[in-house]
Amino acid sequence: MNMAAAYSDTRGAMERSIRERVPPLLTDLYQFTMAYAYWRAGRHQEPAVFELFFRDNPFGGGFSLFAGLQDCLQFLQSFCFTDEDVEFLRSVLPPNTDPAFFTFLRGLDCSGVTVRSVPEGTVVFARVPVMEVAGPLAVVQLLETSLLCLVNYASLVCSNAARFRLAAGPSRSLLEMGLRRAQGPDGGLTASRYSYIGGFDMTSNVQAGFLFGIPVVGTMAHSFVTSFSSLEEVWPQTLNTASGDQVDLISLTKGLLSRVCVLLRAEAGKICEGELAAFLTYAIAYPHNFLPVIDSYSVACSGLLNFCAVALALSELGYRPLGVRLDSGDLCRQSLEVRHVFKLCSQHFSASTFDSLIIVGTNSFSENTMSELNKKENEIDAVGVGTHLVTCTKQPSLGCVYKLVEVRGRPRMKVSEDPEKSTVPGKKAVYRLLHTEGHPFLDVVCLAVEPPPKAGHPFSYYLREEDTSRCVTPAQVTCLRQEVFTKGQVTYPVCSAKETRAKAQSSLQMLHPKYKRLQDPDIYTVAVSEKLYKLVSEIRRGITNNSANFLLSN
Amino acid sequence: MNMAAAYSDTRGAMERSIRERVPPLLTDLYQFTMAYAYWRAGRHQEPAVFELFFRDNPFGGGFSLFAGLQDCLQFLQSFCFTDEDVEFLRSVLPPNTDPAFFTFLRGLDCSGVTVRSVPEGTVVFARVPVMEVAGPLAVVQLLETSLLCLVNYASLVCSNAARFRLAAGPSRSLLEMGLRRAQGPDGGLTASRYSYIGGFDMTSNVQAGFLFGIPVVGTMAHSFVTSFSSLEEVWPQTLNTASGDQVDLISLTKGLLSRVCVLLRAEAGKICEGELAAFLTYAIAYPHNFLPVIDSYSVACSGLLNFCAVALALSELGYRPLGVRLDSGDLCRQSLEVRHVFKLCSQHFSASTFDSLIIVGTNSFSENTMSELNKKENEIDAVGVGTHLVTCTKQPSLGCVYKLVEVRGRPRMKVSEDPEKSTVPGKKAVYRLLHTEGHPFLDVVCLAVEPPPKAGHPFSYYLREEDTSRCVTPAQVTCLRQEVFTKGQVTYPVCSAKETRAKAQSSLQMLHPKYKRLQDPDIYTVAVSEKLYKLVSEIRRGITNNSANFLLSN
Repeated sequence: MNMAAAYSDTRGAMERSIRERVPPLLTDLYQFTMAYAYWRAGRHQEPAVFELFFRDNPFGGGFSLFAGLQDCLQFLQSFCFTDEDVEFLRSVLPPNTDPAFFTFLRGLDCSGVTVRSVPEGTVVFARVPVMEVAGPLAVVQLLETSLLCLVNYASLVCSNAARFRLAAGPSRSLLEMGLRRAQGPDGGLTASRYSYIGGFDMTSNVQAGFLFGIPVVGTMAHSFVTSFSSLEEVWPQTLNTASGDQVDLISLTKGLLSRVCVLLRAEAGKICEGELAAFLTYAIAYPHNFLPVIDSYSVACSGLLNFCAVALALSELGYRPLGVRLDSGDLCRQSLEVRHVFKLCSQHFSASTFDSLIIVGTNSFSENTMSELNKKENEIDAVGVGTHLVTCTKQPSLGCVYKLVEVRGRPRMKVSEDPEKSTVPGKKAVYRLLHTEGHPFLDVVCLAVEPPPKAGHPFSYYLREEDTSRCVTPAQVTCLRQEVFTKGQVTYPVCSAKETRAKAQSSLQMLHPKYKRLQDPDIYTVAVSEKLYKLVSEIRRGITNNSANFLLSN
Repeated sequence: MNMAAAYSDTRGAMERSIRERVPPLLTDLYQFTMAYAYWRAGRHQEPAVFELFFRDNPFGGGFSLFAGLQDCLQFLQSFCFTDEDVEFLRSVLPPNTDPAFFTFLRGLDCSGVTVRSVPEGTVVFARVPVMEVAGPLAVVQLLETSLLCLVNYASLVCSNAARFRLAAGPSRSLLEMGLRRAQGPDGGLTASRYSYIGGFDMTSNVQAGFLFGIPVVGTMAHSFVTSFSSLEEVWPQTLNTASGDQVDLISLTKGLLSRVCVLLRAEAGKICEGELAAFLTYAIAYPHNFLPVIDSYSVACSGLLNFCAVALALSELGYRPLGVRLDSGDLCRQSLEVRHVFKLCSQHFSASTFDSLIIVGTNSFSENTMSELNKKENEIDAVGVGTHLVTCTKQPSLGCVYKLVEVRGRPRMKVSEDPEKSTVPGKKAVYRLLHTEGHPFLDVVCLAVEPPPKAGHPFSYYLREEDTSRCVTPAQVTCLRQEVFTKGQVTYPVCSAKETRAKAQSSLQMLHPKYKRLQDPDIYTVAVSEKLYKLVSEIRRGITNNSANFLLSN
């Protein structure tokens, strides 16, 4: 495999591309009709606060990884409408829209917006407001769809990757290779970026290497193998040894192949010549990077024999072959057979290079089949994952929402007939409470104006569904969110994918294993402070009782 | 709802954006390692043919809609590497890569490539090669991942939309509103475009209106409603009648609300003042486009009453209110209650505008809940669909593949241990055979050199899994694919989304209903010609028997 850690300075390119990826018209029309109604009523500048959260951890799991923040910040920083945008809006909005509104739109930006957010790559839980967006009512309303779109999929696929990593265990190499099956090209690029952050090691996606410095790998497809039919197609037919001598690789390999057949009691007549030609051509092109796919015809009758012959030839010339890829059938069983043959060859030919060959498996891996690798005997060192990782087949959408919680300093709340869809009012702060060993055990959502819980002091909280308070004494308290965008300026450091990956892995490391079980995890407690609990009760009562005999007034 | 059919001339913008969306590095690294091996062996210019197909119709259905072709053509036309691309590749590929290869890459384009394809928006079936890409081996190999990425999701979401349309029946209005839940921003845009082509009527996505001329709609979210708390926030408080007189809309509405309460025996004390303020503000801003969401608090106790009062006031002033949106709870039951109240108001207040109000339902519609609308009594005129449509929760990936079938005029085939993964060799033509009534009943994959089946003449074919041939006499025969890209030039007419939508709907119309059943459809027959059948058998034998005693030769 060809690995490269290319950390190019591509921040400029990323900023340019956010306007292409998320132009300000890429939003729901109702954001504009609402903005107009606010503007018409003179309410567009009223200070408002929205919150972004999701209602359930994805995949039936006990946690999520928060991702998408850097894209959101770039989007906010570049948010503005061009003349062309505004002209199109004029053609879409009702003809009686006041023309002055379009002038207002043309001048809009995020200079009045402030965002507090959980840092990217942090473990988060359902119902914790991970991001708070404060600013002029019309502006923060207009941002809704884009922010949701950028956070939803990034967090989903990052959490999915973290689950694949948990299923695979810490030592197996994980390769993301889902671009062709992703929901569009940008979906594929996003998947590569956040799969890496969630715990994958490499990607097949070159652009992800270019933009985000993710290690990129790849060797050959079946089409390469099947494109060859005879040894006559191999050219050049020679390879230089490490010391510079030119050797006829074809003759050398044919001799070794005969010996491999004898060793393994294999029928030479069943070996596919085109496959050998493909392996030789690749080995001559990349003698240091020989890792062919060996199941284009038959692993046992052709692919493995051809591999061994070429790999032995390379070894004789002083090169170190890398390994093989298996792409179909029962990978566990095949990997055992392949490893067995590698050991035989190592002994018989005194080829120590065969002791460190790796076996890569790539055959529609899901979270479940990945977990099974730890139960069934196998010799698979690295796993490539595509469809199930990038499209998140188990649950292809996270369902983040963006809800209004405060206008002009007054808490706002939606009290739906569907209790799940009710919201929690007020501008807030979120604290994470930790045990002595450093494991988080409770997230508390408080009102922003409240004093924070203190380490070593008892703190009382409410669960959403209970009427009585509980009390706890945390060993440590951390404030979960920080200001990341202040009045139009990004105040959050730009991190490389590698740095964010390290943060995510350390955040996951801190989480107690009981919350990380893939099946039936313990449920992490998310609570509200006493003050917030009382505010919710008051507003509910207010809406039911108070809500005005306004019909009597004039 | 605000509808706009904006058909802007945005072809230039689309061509610019394809390079941003699908830069030539957005592909798997192995395409480059293979290209290098071909180049090194002097095989890069050999004429080769690849085919694109999928192995199963998605969603357990009986058909698919082919989509993504126009994007593919734009991608092919703009395909080339910049100096920056090539420099990055140099850093990723193994250090022993011959520098002349990068010069070769820098000069590459698709001027040697020819594509034959099924037209966009055609009904297609599993295992039919929908696209054939012919050209220099190294170039057509490099195109694989991008073409798959562009066809896979477009065809998947287009087919999904067609199923939602079948589930909804022909007359219900369907609105796509999934942007915020899509797998990234480009996924959302692609979903809007192909949902429309698959049979949706409108989108909430403004950018999809801008780029593709799709009708865009939208009114208000719950946040708009909950942002208001009192009638004092309504400004201006007046509205002009159609004849130009200024009327105090608040007083008028309050009076009507009292009368509505009496009519419906509702408690005035339970009505939410903020909700009424929101409705009034919106009505004053957009008196011709009044369609509020009425379940922010309680439909029966507040939202519906407020709506009726404002809608009656608008009607009195000569405006025609549009309807309501329901976003939670049992939509069927609620829609019946709402319609009942509309009828009562129409009679009681002699408000004929209430006879044509529409009820829009938007609450996590899936294909199944959409189908249920036809079984349960309801009054829902239009349905908004998000998550389940755009992320294709039932099956979030199509699984298109791209397989080599010919090199230098010689058929190529992959004979996998997994029979499902074997390929069908040779350059082909595909014919669709139709009954007298115009219904297609059989697709036949032939070798390109064969004469086509003729209308009125018996034609013999083979099924993949059978050894004996069958015979049929078609009433009509159509050639399914056409040349769409000839030696670097697009030869397929650029169609608007509206035109492609019409084609898709007519192609679906021709398909017999038995193949369109959402559950357990009949399986449409895809066969091979006798010549192709024999070629496959020959190659299988050749690989097993012939495959060379090449070890004996030198």
